[in-house]
Amino acid sequence: MSVPYKYQTLPIEKVFRDPVHNYIHINHQVILDLINSKEVQRLRRIKQLGTSSFTFHGAEHSRFSHSLGVYEITRRICNIFEQNYSNKKLKEDGWDDSERLIALCAALLHDVGHGPYSHTFERIFHTNHEEISVAIITSPETEVYQILNRVEADFPEKVASVITKTYPNPQVVQMISSQIDADRMDYLLRDAYYTGTKYGTFDLTRILRMIRPCKDGVVFSMDGMHAVEDYIVSRYQMYVQVYFHPSSRGMEVVLEHLLNRAHELFFEDSNLFYNTAQLLVPFFKKNFSLQDYLRLDDGVLTTAFNLWTEANDSILNDLSQRFLNRKPLKSCRFEPKTQDKLIATMKKITEKAGFNPDYYTAINSSYDLPYDFYHPELEKHRTQIELQQNDGSLTELSKVSQLVAALAGQEQGDHRFYFPKEMVDQNLQNDYDLFAETYRLFASHIHNGALI
Amino acid sequence: MSVPYKYQTLPIEKVFRDPVHNYIHINHQVILDLINSKEVQRLRRIKQLGTSSFTFHGAEHSRFSHSLGVYEITRRICNIFEQNYSNKKLKEDGWDDSERLIALCAALLHDVGHGPYSHTFERIFHTNHEEISVAIITSPETEVYQILNRVEADFPEKVASVITKTYPNPQVVQMISSQIDADRMDYLLRDAYYTGTKYGTFDLTRILRMIRPCKDGVVFSMDGMHAVEDYIVSRYQMYVQVYFHPSSRGMEVVLEHLLNRAHELFFEDSNLFYNTAQLLVPFFKKNFSLQDYLRLDDGVLTTAFNLWTEANDSILNDLSQRFLNRKPLKSCRFEPKTQDKLIATMKKITEKAGFNPDYYTAINSSYDLPYDFYHPELEKHRTQIELQQNDGSLTELSKVSQLVAALAGQEQGDHRFYFPKEMVDQNLQNDYDLFAETYRLFASHIHNGALI
Amino acid sequence: MSVPYKYQTLPIEKVFRDPVHNYIHINHQVILDLINSKEVQRLRRIKQLGTSSFTFHGAEHSRFSHSLGVYEITRRICNIFEQNYSNKKLKEDGWDDSERLIALCAALLHDVGHGPYSHTFERIFHTNHEEISVAIITSPETEVYQILNRVEADFPEKVASVITKTYPNPQVVQMISSQIDADRMDYLLRDAYYTGTKYGTFDLTRILRMIRPCKDGVVFSMDGMHAVEDYIVSRYQMYVQVYFHPSSRGMEVVLEHLLNRAHELFFEDSNLFYNTAQLLVPFFKKNFSLQDYLRLDDGVLTTAFNLWTEANDSILNDLSQRFLNRKPLKSCRFEPKTQDKLIATMKKITEKAGFNPDYYTAINSSYDLPYDFYHPELEKHRTQIELQQNDGSLTELSKVSQLVAALAGQEQGDHRFYFPKEMVDQNLQNDYDLFAETYRLFASHIHNGALI
Amino acid sequence: MSVPYKYQTLPIEKVFRDPVHNYIHINHQVILDLINSKEVQRLRRIKQLGTSSFTFHGAEHSRFSHSLGVYEITRRICNIFEQNYSNKKLKEDGWDDSERLIALCAALLHDVGHGPYSHTFERIFHTNHEEISVAIITSPETEVYQILNRVEADFPEKVASVITKTYPNPQVVQMISSQIDADRMDYLLRDAYYTGTKYGTFDLTRILRMIRPCKDGVVFSMDGMHAVEDYIVSRYQMYVQVYFHPSSRGMEVVLEHLLNRAHELFFEDSNLFYNTAQLLVPFFKKNFSLQDYLRLDDGVLTTAFNLWTEANDSILNDLSQRFLNRKPLKSCRFEPKTQDKLIATMKKITEKAGFNPDYYTAINSSYDLPYDFYHPELEKHRTQIELQQNDGSLTELSKVSQLVAALAGQEQGDHRFYFPKEMVDQNLQNDYDLFAETYRLFASHIHNGALI
Repeated sequence: MSVPYKYQTLPIEKVFRDPVHNYIHINHQVILDLINSKEVQRLRRIKQLGTSSFTFHGAEHSRFSHSLGVYEITRRICNIFEQNYSNKKLKEDGWDDSERLIALCAALLHDVGHGPYSHTFERIFHTNHEEISVAIITSPETEVYQILNRVEADFPEKVASVITKTYPNPQVVQMISSQIDADRMDYLLRDAYYTGTKYGTFDLTRILRMIRPCKDGVVFSMDGMHAVEDYIVSRYQMYVQVYFHPSSRGMEVVLEHLLNRAHELFFEDSNLFYNTAQLLVPFFKKNFSLQDYLRLDDGVLTTAFNLWTEANDSILNDLSQRFLNRKPLKSCRFEPKTQDKLIATMKKITEKAGFNPDYYTAINSSYDLPYDFYHPELEKHRTQIELQQNDGSLTELSKVSQLVAALAGQEQGDHRFYFPKEMVDQNLQNDYDLFAETYRLFASHIHNGALI
Repeated sequence: MSVPYKYQTLPIEKVFRDPVHNYIHINHQVILDLINSKEVQRLRRIKQLGTSSFTFHGAEHSRFSHSLGVYEITRRICNIFEQNYSNKKLKEDGWDDSERLIALCAALLHDVGHGPYSHTFERIFHTNHEEISVAIITSPETEVYQILNRVEADFPEKVASVITKTYPNPQVVQMISSQIDADRMDYLLRDAYYTGTKYGTFDLTRILRMIRPCKDGVVFSMDGMHAVEDYIVSRYQMYVQVYFHPSSRGMEVVLEHLLNRAHELFFEDSNLFYNTAQLLVPFFKKNFSLQDYLRLDDGVLTTAFNLWTEANDSILNDLSQRFLNRKPLKSCRFEPKTQDKLIATMKKITEKAGFNPDYYTAINSSYDLPYDFYHPELEKHRTQIELQQNDGSLTELSKVSQLVAALAGQEQGDHRFYFPKEMVDQNLQNDYDLFAETYRLFASHIHNGALI
Repeated sequence: MSVPYKYQTLPIEKVFRDPVHNYIHINHQVILDLINSKEVQRLRRIKQLGTSSFTFHGAEHSRFSHSLGVYEITRRICNIFEQNYSNKKLKEDGWDDSERLIALCAALLHDVGHGPYSHTFERIFHTNHEEISVAIITSPETEVYQILNRVEADFPEKVASVITKTYPNPQVVQMISSQIDADRMDYLLRDAYYTGTKYGTFDLTRILRMIRPCKDGVVFSMDGMHAVEDYIVSRYQMYVQVYFHPSSRGMEVVLEHLLNRAHELFFEDSNLFYNTAQLLVPFFKKNFSLQDYLRLDDGVLTTAFNLWTEANDSILNDLSQRFLNRKPLKSCRFEPKTQDKLIATMKKITEKAGFNPDYYTAINSSYDLPYDFYHPELEKHRTQIELQQNDGSLTELSKVSQLVAALAGQEQGDHRFYFPKEMVDQNLQNDYDLFAETYRLFASHIHNGALI
Repeated sequence: MSVPYKYQTLPIEKVFRDPVHNYIHINHQVILDLINSKEVQRLRRIKQLGTSSFTFHGAEHSRFSHSLGVYEITRRICNIFEQNYSNKKLKEDGWDDSERLIALCAALLHDVGHGPYSHTFERIFHTNHEEISVAIITSPETEVYQILNRVEADFPEKVASVITKTYPNPQVVQMISSQIDADRMDYLLRDAYYTGTKYGTFDLTRILRMIRPCKDGVVFSMDGMHAVEDYIVSRYQMYVQVYFHPSSRGMEVVLEHLLNRAHELFFEDSNLFYNTAQLLVPFFKKNFSLQDYLRLDDGVLTTAFNLWTEANDSILNDLSQRFLNRKPLKSCRFEPKTQDKLIATMKKITEKAGFNPDYYTAINSSYDLPYDFYHPELEKHRTQIELQQNDGSLTELSKVSQLVAALAGQEQGDHRFYFPKEMVDQNLQNDYDLFAETYRLFASHIHNGALI
């Protein structure tokens, strides 16, 4: 074929049926090849929401689904920009459609570096999914790189620079990554669909009608103020109701302690891990290659846990079972600083009942979760949400929306102290008589779901 | 607590948010304990639709979700029966609500014996998920058994007998297992929701309004004829459009060949498998316990495949990659018997191009898939769908529905010949010149998607 | 502006929020002007489903909504045709986009001639909504004509010829009017949405992906067979479950008798009608102009009925109240011919109980309803549904779909005998003792909802 | 039958298919009789949203649908209260199910006094739909009264007292009428469904799970805080985006001027109105009976307007056409007080262009619209939304929700100046040259949709 790879389109548009967007539409050979690459296919084996599916059993969707969704929203934005706001008409305020392929590739690949239960895994093993995304895109050994490189020699670097937000065209960058971008729009809708909650639902079609390019990035028509406001409120609701759910965090805490325990034990008994979790060994050794990383998926972790349920170490064994059989740590709210001493007391009580507090208690603050919330005062000017007046002038969203103003710059979430359910659930207390006093003391410090 | 376990209800009804049924409602302590048992939690790690999620990327839901759904529909049927058709009023035609707990347990546990990619796994390793469900329910070692046994000594056997259809009360049996039961109703709705297709959608609320008990089982009001008809058509549509999709079957064929290859290699090089797939070894050795089976899940298989991508055996290695990276075999329709000779020819051509036909070609008939379709002439009288006239007399559905009559007793599906995509896709033919003649010959036998 | 009216587009696309299609998109000034014309606005005051809203209280949508919907589907088909199947590429099998405006206008205006409760009104007053649509489009006095005429002198005639199916381009004709056209697709989806039933739901997006033009009209890809099949089944379900509902027909029968009574009384006491229903007088006199017709709407009829509830004529008075207060005649099924004699008997019994059988009984056969169902053998070749094979050859749908074959050529519906509810409902029988014998006799002839 | 009317239940539950609640369930003979009464059936002929359907063409639903919906939500609340919070268990904090029938009747009848385009009609003719609801319920001449009276002699008064909020049981009162009651919950969901917007969608099922009775009325579990918060935000969004839409208000202004003009003309030429609008005459004469009121519906008004399009009075004639053919006045925002002088100027300019400013200009403040928004500081304690802690103590919603705090006590909406579209739309200015200067002057005072 004499058409350059970059411009090759499929003879017939290919579609993937998607519950959220109805269809994902593929026209470029490059995009189809990327989807078929093994690095992208790997995302099928990694759940989008990690431990949230233990709370919302329907939310078993993968990062693969989400990546297709981000691609599709980006494609629709490009269509709208090209049709209504072309740079042919609007000059520097308009959209240059030769940027389309780079935007689509960046959208599809923005999460390609995610691993299993990323947030926890990263904390333990000091990996970083964004850096790994960049590595996957720019390393000659990956299929993704080879496909992008076939487009143009510097194409992998360009795509990577969109993800690192250093790409010169701010429209492309903000489409993929800003306070209201294709990424967030897809995950809110998708997570709402799969959890079965309705909080994340906002009017995507209307927002897409209101979005437009300008010289400094992406803005929204003032007519769309309430639609954007509704999106911000939906996002807030999803955070407080779904992403910060105490039970999911109770499972995350189990996972974190479990991986920590394994990590520590590795140096004592590395054979155990060579036999049960050889794909994790490079990470225990802090010496892993990109290929090592690309072999990880949810199943690799759960299979290791599965094998560890026969380990001699009782903590590793027990935590593995708690994770596989969904036994989250329980929790109550507390006030940091003022109640730090009380936390120490509670840990001691827990220890008295036979639980090593290092592995069976935890502090978890949802503020710690790596989700940024709307707080324009911390952001650079260009990632605020700007509304465009008829005369072209811009107004920052929270200036005109009292709802957004109420949320802006305010951290959401809470601080929780986690402990074994056995401390408060009589059905689980086999040796109740032995520890009755301890349990009573523990319970006396919790009232209305908060530490007192 | 002095209330017998059987009658213990939760102080406050517990709910699980479910995208299909909105909420799953739990009132019995027994049910909550069963859900929390490790045998049921294991179902979270087994996809409901197996290889279908390679075609419908949204369909990543688990057998756990489906089990909750079947439970919930059964619960709603019990409510309707108790409220409107109690045996206190209707005597032997009515519903005896003391059967409720057994019905709920059987509903929740009906699929508890499923393993990863059941249909394929069972063919290779001669396991049987229904028998294993019974074993899980009746083996003293399982948590499920211990919970059921706490209800009553013979309770596990009773629950098991519902699944084997030998339980004396036909109402309970047919609720869970008949041509229109809680199982099928949930999976059609759920699979439609998660694939994003609309074919499986029927009017559950209306069907539940029309269902009623009778002496010999479960029937429907004649007023609900069109609603039941619509359910049958939805089911037909899901089979031909989703469950029998050629690409999903192309992945199933890869999986089957892959497991076969491993099975064969085990006797040559068992060490390889002790190192990479120790949880599968009992199955290779045809000597597995219930506990061995209960350790299997999707992740165990994919982790083995992951490790096999470094195996020396090129077929094992290649098929593992094809499965993980979603490279299904391609296919065309053919006519069995009249085209058997041609199939043999096609296999030979495939071999000439360098592919071992035992592992790279296959015959797959969707009729073989273990889904029963509506064919009352093969069924015993009691599992037909019967409609109840005003005067109590019954009429079999296909007698009054011309749509159902058109489908009844007719097998659906097709026969397909599977082969490597390389045989027909020029982009994949690196050594095109070498095999050009072979490829051309192969292609000349396929026209309009069928063998000629 | 120097752009000819025909080509004038709106500076910014205008949209109407629509529950069925999300948005209706308007780009042409001509279309916006037509929507704003008084003949089209009048459709806001005419219910789409007539007496069906008495059974399905949610179905109060107007012919205006439906007309916008047919326009929108047609617009989407034109977009798909232009994008994928242009005549620039496919020659005579392709779509000539200069036909777009005529298709859009015909779609928007195809029902503009409907009046209040059309089917009944037409039977009584011998009007014909299709002829009137043509008259509205081609009469110089209407706003619709003036707008179309501004496009081109012969444009009104062209648009009218699409509606009469004499327009030379069969693609345009079949888009608007065939077995699977924009009209039927919109009303099935819309009526399903507004009634709250799910039967009419089919996969519009998928069907639109499968539709394509050819020399002789509009066909569907063979890949879309099951989607088209599903549409046919949905249509069947809507007919038998919604459009043919016995209660709606019971209200239609009241309306018919009421208008008949008024028509007859007019010649006895025309003053009554000049005072209460002056807008109906031209129709009583069988001498009406297009302008007379265009003043009719649902409110004109109900206001007349409202005033007639004070008429001296007890039948006119009573039937008016029955219509306004929703007191449908009741019904039972019967077999024509074999039970004609029995019908005569039933009428006599009804008369004995004090009801004039001419106004209080009726025969209503849903076959009579002016809805055509799928019966290709009766249609000319060009309106069958044809599926296109890969090699371009066509196959008629029922040849490959056993479901459609089961429905094709079979009349759906039933024959019903209507009578006053008083005949069978004891709560309504004030003078029960007087007529007890009569009532008993009447009831003895009805069993299981059918005449015996 | 010897069962007292009050306790008569239908032999089989009757259902109405409803798009919003799926089914409306009827069990009491009393409720079925009320639905069939002519006063309730009349609500079928009155649109729920008045002039909003001119903006949202899908929103053609009636007050009848809404009344059924309020009944259904109330029924569900009663079920939940009876099942979980019975006074048998909770004493004075619990629900007394003998209150059910009164609650259901009040729910069904709460809007029975609405007339056509109530808000405008009431302003012109000084009617009051709430007072009329009470009159319908308590006047012996109505069917509604006769049904209620059959229950118990003082039952009509009791039902009426729920509507006037004087009924002693605050639980019943607040179910029907408070900041979050069955009325508001239904109309938000219903109006969202029928307009096709998504703003009004909140999680009804979850809210119903969180609602509970207490001694002083109805409260919500603290766990439901975010669900209630979401409802408040949805309500805000519906107000600012749907109910306060400038175009709908532009039609309301036309309607108001039209009725005013007719009212004034009546005293000059009463014959005209006797001939064209006899059902309105009692209102022109300020001397109407309940029966006069009960004959009004949307069709009565539009039929009058229809006849007035031939009136000699050019203003009456023209405004009638504008209303029927949907020609709303246009508008721009303005600041009251500071811009009052400018408004006077704009009116003068309008007059210069030939429009009587009394009939062709208007001030419309959405604050004037009789919708109350959430502002607890103005309400009595008992209608605030209270959240119940675990220990039973109550917290007012805005204390814990920053979103609600942001909205509470803040009036929403805007002030608009309305004028003929001819003033700013060149396409409508036939005599442009004559008034060019006037039009330019007018336009110069409007910038970015606001008066300057």
